[in-house]
Amino acid sequence: MTDDDAGAFVPGQRFRIEGRADGPLAGLSFAAKDLFDVAGHPTGGGNPDWERVNPIPTRHAWAVQRLLGAGAALIGKTITDEVSLGIFGENMFYGTPRNARAPDRVPGGSSSGSAAAVAAGLCDTALGTDTGGSVRVPSSFCGLYGIRPTHGRLDLGGMMSQAPSSDTTGWFARDAETFARVSSVMLDEDIPTEVPRRLRIATDAFAFADPDVAAALQPMVAELGALISNVEDAVLAPPGLLVWAQAQRILQPYEAWQTFREWVDRSNPRFAFNVGRQLAHAAMIAESDRGPALRVRGEARVHMRDLLPPGTILCLPTTPFPAPLRGLPWSALDPLRARITGLAVVGGLTGMPQVSIPGTEVDGLPVGLSVIGRPGSDAALVAVARALAVRRV
Amino acid sequence: MTDDDAGAFVPGQRFRIEGRADGPLAGLSFAAKDLFDVAGHPTGGGNPDWERVNPIPTRHAWAVQRLLGAGAALIGKTITDEVSLGIFGENMFYGTPRNARAPDRVPGGSSSGSAAAVAAGLCDTALGTDTGGSVRVPSSFCGLYGIRPTHGRLDLGGMMSQAPSSDTTGWFARDAETFARVSSVMLDEDIPTEVPRRLRIATDAFAFADPDVAAALQPMVAELGALISNVEDAVLAPPGLLVWAQAQRILQPYEAWQTFREWVDRSNPRFAFNVGRQLAHAAMIAESDRGPALRVRGEARVHMRDLLPPGTILCLPTTPFPAPLRGLPWSALDPLRARITGLAVVGGLTGMPQVSIPGTEVDGLPVGLSVIGRPGSDAALVAVARALAVRRV
Repeated sequence: MTDDDAGAFVPGQRFRIEGRADGPLAGLSFAAKDLFDVAGHPTGGGNPDWERVNPIPTRHAWAVQRLLGAGAALIGKTITDEVSLGIFGENMFYGTPRNARAPDRVPGGSSSGSAAAVAAGLCDTALGTDTGGSVRVPSSFCGLYGIRPTHGRLDLGGMMSQAPSSDTTGWFARDAETFARVSSVMLDEDIPTEVPRRLRIATDAFAFADPDVAAALQPMVAELGALISNVEDAVLAPPGLLVWAQAQRILQPYEAWQTFREWVDRSNPRFAFNVGRQLAHAAMIAESDRGPALRVRGEARVHMRDLLPPGTILCLPTTPFPAPLRGLPWSALDPLRARITGLAVVGGLTGMPQVSIPGTEVDGLPVGLSVIGRPGSDAALVAVARALAVRRV
Repeated sequence: MTDDDAGAFVPGQRFRIEGRADGPLAGLSFAAKDLFDVAGHPTGGGNPDWERVNPIPTRHAWAVQRLLGAGAALIGKTITDEVSLGIFGENMFYGTPRNARAPDRVPGGSSSGSAAAVAAGLCDTALGTDTGGSVRVPSSFCGLYGIRPTHGRLDLGGMMSQAPSSDTTGWFARDAETFARVSSVMLDEDIPTEVPRRLRIATDAFAFADPDVAAALQPMVAELGALISNVEDAVLAPPGLLVWAQAQRILQPYEAWQTFREWVDRSNPRFAFNVGRQLAHAAMIAESDRGPALRVRGEARVHMRDLLPPGTILCLPTTPFPAPLRGLPWSALDPLRARITGLAVVGGLTGMPQVSIPGTEVDGLPVGLSVIGRPGSDAALVAVARALAVRRV
């Protein structure tokens, strides 16, 4: 870690691979979270015992190849929470990337280094992954644009998995125009100039956030309302956000344990305590607990499609609070994690796309406003982010 | 780790501190498990994040000072399972010390490096700790003499604690004469030449061991019987060895969590998965589970005192099988650990002293015979080990 790389890069994994000349992203640079394969470079996964037992990849991950093929240059691989299990961005092996917008705060995770690199201006965009909030949360904490696309939309080839029924590839940018350019390439779709006709405001989600966060986001919500004009209140999670979060906190770890158990058993890898504890708890989830959680998921998916017909989007705070201080004990972080999941749960549970939009601060700390749309509406959400930025200029 | 140190020593902690001239142990050398303070050297505890937050000690632990004061020279600090939580001796940070008697097998733990150093002839004796079997098990696996003294008998000053109601300081030797010399110093008591008058054979413990281990130990039991002459069968654990083990597997981790929780919370240390998992499980033990376990302990203590009046000792296999292969997945080791605890449980649960005596092999792998006596009978147990060796020569 050097002073000028924001502590964002995996040691020894700062390099440069040029993109194709004259693509739509020519002149842009990007970094890739260390869950993505880059040919000739180890995929570290944020844990020294993952790299140790996995061969160095011989081809790029789909997402890496997509950006290189569009002309962007890859400048390195960024630190992730261990095997993507974390939401704060503190890695006990490789350090905590610096949050340029709030240096005494965590960057958020698990796409911590990617967010930190973009926030520090070291690259224009960066690839992350989002299973339970790992792009959206660092977007909020670092004041960035970030997207979790519709689940199942993008090719996840060469991306290290955590929980397949929730895993997605996402990306960050500092400004709306770059965000739209990159999104158009990744989504393989033009970003429209029109915006959706109807906005629903998730009253339960705003009530769930800290009052000062909800208040600080009101001007952005008002601008969004002015842009879209047809505005109404809605309840995001009728059974309660924490009921949804509880279901996701059964489904996601259960799948994560299926993903990692063979490696964990064979290699007995080293983990920071709070990561190993997550896996130890995951290993104890009974198959019989999954049924009720899957029913909650099924009902949540139906509800979200009803709530979001074509042309409708919903807004909510991305996180209930700005980034916590670095170095807190996990006994202080555990309850914060539970609250973050309460707001971040929709994406992983229902697969809906979500974009986090920067533009507000609480006590000088960034916090994001999110828009969610029905499956496949990713480009419309990016369009909203861009239109809002244009309006605000 | 070099080829000639058996992988037994903590990296950088091979050194030499001379003992007092002309003490009773003059000419002997010893090593200390890295749970014992040695002035000027970090107490690593087998985990890099323990050393990181603990100051370098300025005085020797009582046990280290005791041996130095008696004339033995200290030659270094030995690898331990992380914070003494382990019974096999595989440390993911510092490696697995080699078992000189069975090179493809684990040395046993948590006093793994101390046992390995003595077994390899690198020193004459070595300090270990025994909370739930950490001297007795490596004694059995490496073919050594080893003692777990009466709980509470020795000063544990400067020894890193795990579970105070079970923690003890123990030691190893290759031959009975050295074992007796060191024991006399550590216990501050002459080793008698007479042996106890009555031997009880723990039939349930022999039935609990692998049949080939029980069979292989029979000649040693017969020699012991010939030495002591008054022999009878007895049941070690009337409610069942696994009932006792289950009680200990509540009491010991509960205490260990009290010992380590503040450090774990504040530092979020890295642990191999199976160590972090032990602590994660320990953190989940309810206070209400302790009551029944404490009742089992109380009954076990009364039973053991009844079973072992003055002049009576009991014998049992130290471990139910010889050392397992190195590098097994923990899903294979977990059931072995449970069985080891079934035989090792008496010491930690009841505080009785126990000596493990080498002299038998199964398929070329050492396995030990243990003798247990009432509290304070430590020297008598050492006397038995020495008398048996004399008889066998």
